[in-house]
Amino acid sequence: MRIREAQGMMRAIYYHKDSRRGAKRTWEWLLEEVRELGDALQSGDERALASEFADVLAWLASLANVVGVDLEEAFLTKYPGRCPKCGRAVCACPT
Amino acid sequence: MRIREAQGMMRAIYYHKDSRRGAKRTWEWLLEEVRELGDALQSGDERALASEFADVLAWLASLANVVGVDLEEAFLTKYPGRCPKCGRAVCACPT
Repeated sequence: MRIREAQGMMRAIYYHKDSRRGAKRTWEWLLEEVRELGDALQSGDERALASEFADVLAWLASLANVVGVDLEEAFLTKYPGRCPKCGRAVCACPT
Repeated sequence: MRIREAQGMMRAIYYHKDSRRGAKRTWEWLLEEVRELGDALQSGDERALASEFADVLAWLASLANVVGVDLEEAFLTKYPGRCPKCGRAVCACPT
């Protein structure tokens, strides 16, 4: 599935709720989902882990919908097959 | 670009560094990127905002690489075109 399709799917399912909630509170949900992903990493529960990865991507797409950012375009602009800092296809940044 | 391709691109550029850093510290970077996304939301700087969305997706893909999760598969399993809680194509959950 394309990144753009995933974002469009989130729009179809949730935009009526996301747009009412607004950017700040949607960002707070995203932050909470990243915390839950951290908990799942520690739990060792592989199904829970996959589910939390899905949720972080879902909330990131929801937030992008609320503020009108095309996630696929943003990603390809910054990461066109090489590191944006060192410019190499295999990152050679010092840290 | 497919979600799977984006994850593969992150693997090609960064896996040699991501795998050494490990899951916990990569998750901490992801959390920091979500905080930076929050700052960009408040700044009103559209280029910075798009760049931070890209970074969150990039670090989510890096973390998925470190722990061996297929982000596209995880997303499609949890969000197959409908809300995982109410089961509807347009979410009708009460909250």
